[in-house]
Amino acid sequence: MTNTPVTVVGLGSMGSALAGAFLAAGHPTTVWNRTASKADSLVARGASRAGTADEAVRASPLTIACLTTYEDTRAALEPASLTGRALVTLNSGSPAGARRMAEWATSRGARFLDGAVKNIPSAVGAPDTLLYYSGDKAVFDEHVDTLRVLGGDTVHLGDEADLAALYEIAVGGTLLPALVGFFQGAAALRSRGLEAETLLPYATKWFEMIISVLPMYAKEIDSRDYSDPAASVDIFHAGAVADLELAEEGVDVDWQRPMHDLVRRAAEAGHGDRSIAVLTELLSRP
Amino acid sequence: MTNTPVTVVGLGSMGSALAGAFLAAGHPTTVWNRTASKADSLVARGASRAGTADEAVRASPLTIACLTTYEDTRAALEPASLTGRALVTLNSGSPAGARRMAEWATSRGARFLDGAVKNIPSAVGAPDTLLYYSGDKAVFDEHVDTLRVLGGDTVHLGDEADLAALYEIAVGGTLLPALVGFFQGAAALRSRGLEAETLLPYATKWFEMIISVLPMYAKEIDSRDYSDPAASVDIFHAGAVADLELAEEGVDVDWQRPMHDLVRRAAEAGHGDRSIAVLTELLSRP
Repeated sequence: MTNTPVTVVGLGSMGSALAGAFLAAGHPTTVWNRTASKADSLVARGASRAGTADEAVRASPLTIACLTTYEDTRAALEPASLTGRALVTLNSGSPAGARRMAEWATSRGARFLDGAVKNIPSAVGAPDTLLYYSGDKAVFDEHVDTLRVLGGDTVHLGDEADLAALYEIAVGGTLLPALVGFFQGAAALRSRGLEAETLLPYATKWFEMIISVLPMYAKEIDSRDYSDPAASVDIFHAGAVADLELAEEGVDVDWQRPMHDLVRRAAEAGHGDRSIAVLTELLSRP
Repeated sequence: MTNTPVTVVGLGSMGSALAGAFLAAGHPTTVWNRTASKADSLVARGASRAGTADEAVRASPLTIACLTTYEDTRAALEPASLTGRALVTLNSGSPAGARRMAEWATSRGARFLDGAVKNIPSAVGAPDTLLYYSGDKAVFDEHVDTLRVLGGDTVHLGDEADLAALYEIAVGGTLLPALVGFFQGAAALRSRGLEAETLLPYATKWFEMIISVLPMYAKEIDSRDYSDPAASVDIFHAGAVADLELAEEGVDVDWQRPMHDLVRRAAEAGHGDRSIAVLTELLSRP
């Protein structure tokens, strides 16, 4: 069986990792990037360099676009003929952005899938790495073996093109807040001459604890029953004071204020003795 | 060998779990709570009910106070004679609050340890549950076997009484942000009639990914070398736009704005192509 030829457009750190994984798996791989030199190391490893975006898309039945935004993707592919081609976008973006991208791609005759790589570039190609897709299921089924080269945990979420972006933000929306929390902790330790490395065993256990309580919170949210809390709004409300006193240790804590406001509003609305998951109700706009 | 008698003051959900663990391990356990009825189920399981805080503290060489704040703890223990007693506080609070608490306790003649339970009440007593302490090392060494009843992973961080509170906020400061991120995701899915439960496999993997990248970030922070990013400030800056577009899906995203401001300020300060961990520098006040 011959490996499907693949084109990768956009060779930032993630796009280069994707192209590298296809090369390593023996797929004929064509690459294109606006700044052509970004393709050099991939070409040295056996990739074909396309001269234009149109040439790139024509080279393979399947094109993976990995630019920073959907707007960048449309700008890059504007000169290319997409009719009958399978186009997969793997970038960050909103559900609304994914819907606009899908409309554009199908109006240009492409068969369209949107997806997200749920990991960092160095994890691309690993058996455990998760990528999910949504949109044209026929494209997914036709190319699933090729797509699985990018990560062993490859999933199709549904036919609506914006589901991957919806899940990406729903899941990925914890990353920046969790990291800023960790960086704040590192800044607090630094104020005492302690290294961030000393946080690692505790932070690891802490995130494992967070993982362990998510099913409980999901159940509360789905049932809208917040009456038997493991951790109440009042507990977090009291903790907010301590969080803000971290400013005395030379740390900027202002980024936390809107979260504390949310907790305070929940307490004021009479949810004090209910589960902190009740915040989901305050975050849902009617 | 006889088990050390222990007193637990403050019988909220966490205090009750602590007292329950001591009872289960066969320690003579005295309990006190301002609202006396909160002790009823523990008394039914064999605990002694103290009539006053002073009587409670006198009943055991070791008293664990688990009230909501340090202020609550001082108010509750004000009438008690603490001279020569080992007092351990297990509540949320700031390093500054822990320092004030330590001063108060030692001025009253107590031997003082501050600590933190890094888990939810139902995890108390498990072999893997982490509790850490700081302050009077002699108290820790004398009572470590008793303290280990509360969790198998019991650690002394150092002689400075505020270190446990410092680490607690440094580590625990990721919890509310991570949870609000998860609740926001659940709200986004709900807007499409999808259940929070469908997030769980992806969210679990995502937090595992976050755990896996923390050592890399700690190394960058400790070396102050952010020049070889797995995820750059610019990537997060671009992603912020998509995060805010989640408002189109009926979700309140305002709580994220200060975090995005932080990312924007990092980009404007010329850190765009550096690791997102450079935010630690912006969070550190000189």
